Amino acid sequence: MIVILKPGVSLAQMGELVRFIEGQGLRVGRIVRGEERTVIGLIGEERGVPVDRLRAFDGVEDVVPVQKPFKLVNRELQPEDTVVRGRGFSFGDGSFTVIAGPCAVESEAQILETARFLKEHGASLLRGGAYKPRTSPYTFQGMAGEGLELLARAREETGLAIITEVVSAEDVTAVAEVADVLQVGARNMHNVRLLQHVGRSERPVFLKRGQSATLEEFLLAAEHVAAEGNPNVVLCERGIRTFERYTRNTLDIAAVPLLKGLSHLPVVVDPSHATGRRELVPPLSAAALVAGADGIMVEVHPDPENALSDGPQSLTFRQFAEMMERLTRIRGALRAETAGV
Amino acid sequence: MIVILKPGVSLAQMGELVRFIEGQGLRVGRIVRGEERTVIGLIGEERGVPVDRLRAFDGVEDVVPVQKPFKLVNRELQPEDTVVRGRGFSFGDGSFTVIAGPCAVESEAQILETARFLKEHGASLLRGGAYKPRTSPYTFQGMAGEGLELLARAREETGLAIITEVVSAEDVTAVAEVADVLQVGARNMHNVRLLQHVGRSERPVFLKRGQSATLEEFLLAAEHVAAEGNPNVVLCERGIRTFERYTRNTLDIAAVPLLKGLSHLPVVVDPSHATGRRELVPPLSAAALVAGADGIMVEVHPDPENALSDGPQSLTFRQFAEMMERLTRIRGALRAETAGV
Amino acid sequence: MIVILKPGVSLAQMGELVRFIEGQGLRVGRIVRGEERTVIGLIGEERGVPVDRLRAFDGVEDVVPVQKPFKLVNRELQPEDTVVRGRGFSFGDGSFTVIAGPCAVESEAQILETARFLKEHGASLLRGGAYKPRTSPYTFQGMAGEGLELLARAREETGLAIITEVVSAEDVTAVAEVADVLQVGARNMHNVRLLQHVGRSERPVFLKRGQSATLEEFLLAAEHVAAEGNPNVVLCERGIRTFERYTRNTLDIAAVPLLKGLSHLPVVVDPSHATGRRELVPPLSAAALVAGADGIMVEVHPDPENALSDGPQSLTFRQFAEMMERLTRIRGALRAETAGV
Amino acid sequence: MIVILKPGVSLAQMGELVRFIEGQGLRVGRIVRGEERTVIGLIGEERGVPVDRLRAFDGVEDVVPVQKPFKLVNRELQPEDTVVRGRGFSFGDGSFTVIAGPCAVESEAQILETARFLKEHGASLLRGGAYKPRTSPYTFQGMAGEGLELLARAREETGLAIITEVVSAEDVTAVAEVADVLQVGARNMHNVRLLQHVGRSERPVFLKRGQSATLEEFLLAAEHVAAEGNPNVVLCERGIRTFERYTRNTLDIAAVPLLKGLSHLPVVVDPSHATGRRELVPPLSAAALVAGADGIMVEVHPDPENALSDGPQSLTFRQFAEMMERLTRIRGALRAETAGV
Repeated sequence: MIVILKPGVSLAQMGELVRFIEGQGLRVGRIVRGEERTVIGLIGEERGVPVDRLRAFDGVEDVVPVQKPFKLVNRELQPEDTVVRGRGFSFGDGSFTVIAGPCAVESEAQILETARFLKEHGASLLRGGAYKPRTSPYTFQGMAGEGLELLARAREETGLAIITEVVSAEDVTAVAEVADVLQVGARNMHNVRLLQHVGRSERPVFLKRGQSATLEEFLLAAEHVAAEGNPNVVLCERGIRTFERYTRNTLDIAAVPLLKGLSHLPVVVDPSHATGRRELVPPLSAAALVAGADGIMVEVHPDPENALSDGPQSLTFRQFAEMMERLTRIRGALRAETAGV
Repeated sequence: MIVILKPGVSLAQMGELVRFIEGQGLRVGRIVRGEERTVIGLIGEERGVPVDRLRAFDGVEDVVPVQKPFKLVNRELQPEDTVVRGRGFSFGDGSFTVIAGPCAVESEAQILETARFLKEHGASLLRGGAYKPRTSPYTFQGMAGEGLELLARAREETGLAIITEVVSAEDVTAVAEVADVLQVGARNMHNVRLLQHVGRSERPVFLKRGQSATLEEFLLAAEHVAAEGNPNVVLCERGIRTFERYTRNTLDIAAVPLLKGLSHLPVVVDPSHATGRRELVPPLSAAALVAGADGIMVEVHPDPENALSDGPQSLTFRQFAEMMERLTRIRGALRAETAGV
Repeated sequence: MIVILKPGVSLAQMGELVRFIEGQGLRVGRIVRGEERTVIGLIGEERGVPVDRLRAFDGVEDVVPVQKPFKLVNRELQPEDTVVRGRGFSFGDGSFTVIAGPCAVESEAQILETARFLKEHGASLLRGGAYKPRTSPYTFQGMAGEGLELLARAREETGLAIITEVVSAEDVTAVAEVADVLQVGARNMHNVRLLQHVGRSERPVFLKRGQSATLEEFLLAAEHVAAEGNPNVVLCERGIRTFERYTRNTLDIAAVPLLKGLSHLPVVVDPSHATGRRELVPPLSAAALVAGADGIMVEVHPDPENALSDGPQSLTFRQFAEMMERLTRIRGALRAETAGV
Repeated sequence: MIVILKPGVSLAQMGELVRFIEGQGLRVGRIVRGEERTVIGLIGEERGVPVDRLRAFDGVEDVVPVQKPFKLVNRELQPEDTVVRGRGFSFGDGSFTVIAGPCAVESEAQILETARFLKEHGASLLRGGAYKPRTSPYTFQGMAGEGLELLARAREETGLAIITEVVSAEDVTAVAEVADVLQVGARNMHNVRLLQHVGRSERPVFLKRGQSATLEEFLLAAEHVAAEGNPNVVLCERGIRTFERYTRNTLDIAAVPLLKGLSHLPVVVDPSHATGRRELVPPLSAAALVAGADGIMVEVHPDPENALSDGPQSLTFRQFAEMMERLTRIRGALRAETAGV
């Protein structure tokens, strides 16, 4: 059960409320003060709690009897889809939104050439890592601030919104000044401090599923963001770690309809990281579309053979253009369906 | 490297050949005598082997330098798709073939009602377990011979081909007398003796991936069947075991394009067993279609609530009909694509 | 709930019993007729069933209200340890029993030399595959009947009991004529037909855990054997499949104390297959001992470099002897403990 | 290949070196400047590189041709064991060091009572979470600074060194002022920024394996710490995520001898988090000891039933004392072995 408090609730009001709650044999799990609202999670046996009396407290906006551990992001709490919007893009309103770009920003020429091509062929957001959290300390770690500047230049020229990864709580403010969307990578899905910081940002958050995270843990990570006051979270399925060795990870395509059922948040699929093989990106992007995803994130590089990272999973320009055409054709068939044609 | 021998090769010819092979520092891994051909797998360092001299031996039909451990089912050996055909169905010729039916045959009324409905709505094969290899000895184990008879009756009435599972080498002959397609279940994918027996049958074999089998092991299981002389194998991806608990298994959708690339055999997806949840079957069936599968196998039951097994993953008739309509619409878009429209 | 019937129960008595059961709103899941006893598994809501009236039926020996799906092998049903005994060996009586030998029987010299050495250094059973269920059809599949004969000769000379794998229901009788213990391999743990056949044999059964089997599934496989009337089952943990790639499998050492708690059956560890690396066999054998295992199964070969299978995981004679000394020393410390010294 | 530079190397010297490296067709992967040394990781085809000329450069201390991606922590680079020492404890010198304490610091009484008991019964370090990175935002998140103070008080009274988790780069300095050892938890093993910060601390680092990290990724995380100049890293195996559901994770006991072989760093096992069940902690602690671990970390609580977190996996005082006695007895047997007795 969670109790949602009104914006201007006083400390005295909260104290009284907490005493009442504890008098009912419950404990206050945690008080999360967001900028817009304060949320109290209750722990304990909820049967027999007088919900009406709780609701009647001054300062209480609502009491929500959610059984699952994720509450704010739960579709039970909010049946209608959350729509996450920004500069020329939206997720969750029925559109199929394409994020594309290189794994890492490598040079001005690379990122501008890519951005122009993607804009022409239907992408809405440009991806490109500036800070790369790499497994080995001896590999390319990204261009950092300089990378961010190049992304901003690409946006200026093409109008594409930009999304880039933030890898540490201390970088959130700096990255949020440039990026339209903050990405939290799979390696950081359990980094609670980072989740809390992006939860206090005004930018939408693009949250990737950890490589061995269950769907429940994934939604709890989103809950950490939402509990801090940021409701604009996009969930991204990017493959889970299994025993199979032909692919880098195993794309959990069933996660798409499952997440859409469990939560009101938009769901995007990243088939590039899910498989690590470019020839699998077009068929799995189509699979994501028909399974109900709100978009895809794919890696595209002008010259994959010489990419500084993730070359084998990056599409060439031509492959991207062909894939977009096929997706448009399938989307046409699906739209006809919705229209009852 | 494998050496394929001509049908009537004599023992003397084989002895001479083996002596030559061993003289080259190689070992004969195994001699597989199928009814139509005999195949010899060679083990050891293959560089420097005089392939032309091997080919020149009397009794040798071909010598195939395949690097991967699976050879006869490898697309390197046979670039064109294998088409598996039977009573009114085909897999691998560009069609999208639907196998449907209950998990287990439960009664005459159940199987006949289901068969009629499926026939009307576009299915080509009727599934239905007669022998059920269950995890617990205390649950329903199938109707055995009686179940086979009911399937035959359903075929007679509707013309649907029937596919059913064979769980032991000793049952192959009896089941093959009735079934149009022999299914080897996931639990038996590593049952080499059973693979060998269905490999000597004239019926097509529908081979399910073991729940923790790599794609290579899966293709090696198919190789066991093919090595005995039966080239008509359909591969079925039905989910692998992972840590995720919302679904019974995790559908490895990437396996579809991967298997189509590695092998010339048809590939089918079973979203019912992959997920264990009926609401996921329609979106994942669509995903299978656009990812390149040659068909699907789905569970349908007239009254899933009261099914003796797998009720939660069985579609109702209405759900099946709606799914088939949607698949037809998507397929139209894909065909337009192939036709260059 | 399971109902255990007396040996000479008549069909009329059973009919009456079943009618009574069904009158209580339960279904008879399955009737398992073993040679010594017949067991009926009940399905349905068990609350409110008049257990005393069931027990009072003629022909009913006992009624056991076991909640877990495995019943006969459940420690709730039988708190004392099952002791599995045979020619000079026992499992489950507090001893630490060592099974050793090559992966496969390769020649008379190999198996006799190995058997003599092992006998001298404390092994109680000789392992050696005669039928090898291999993943690829092109690798060595074992010496079959000839292998069995060589094992028998080794037993004659050394007195070691022999254990060998049976891979198909149709081979059980032949293998049981020679082997002291029938091994069911990991690939066949889900082969229900085979489990039923070894369940009707008088030989003890050595059951390996499937590579992705949960402990519950493992115990249900043992239940299949026990339900057919053979209570002499030894459970063998041999590693499960995970994402880790340094080892062939991941030894689930926690399975040892867990299985000992859940079931009364003896538990043995196979660190050779669990890891695929010989240097890990001695430390993991020691781990098995202190974690409470009743024994180990290890691969030993006179010349691992030239073994026809599993060379990298086979101990040399010297490594085996050193390991046995270390195990004896640790065992001394543990015995002192039990003795309260 | 890595190049290790001397402490006072000048920028000019480095520039010259880099030009030479690039002239050889290699790229500089990354330059890691620790306080004590600067390390350059080279990327590219290393065959043919004139190692002697590299070594001859001014400012170059050593050139190490390590093939594996982890280099500084690789046993190839340093064959002798690293010994990590601190206030009254050491890891890696042949001792078996016990870290114990509650999951989280809950109150002064709780932590002091526990510390006194543990000190008496052979523990060397006291664990206790002050900052808890919890999956859900609504559960107890730790006492933060107040928790640190209570740990310090417990140390003052008992002399036990203290180890506590640091969850964010920005907290490293504050936590390092109090803690004797900095713990990086499993959820943060991939948090590169945090690894870099603890790599610049003077405190030893206790690094837990991520729940789906391969051993190679685990060692690369340690490499991140070492590359920043902190060689005092203790590796902790704490279970990996698999399909098995009886335990919270699966303890990868083989990781102990493997890590000891691959790296010179000490290895510790945490059977409490690995299993989530207290009855498994004593047998698995013994398994860790005989498998070659340098110590264990276990959860102990004066009243596990009422613990705020991880109660089911916490030992009672009595269980801890009994376990320590048993470990001492086994250790006696192992020491006799080393002593050749």
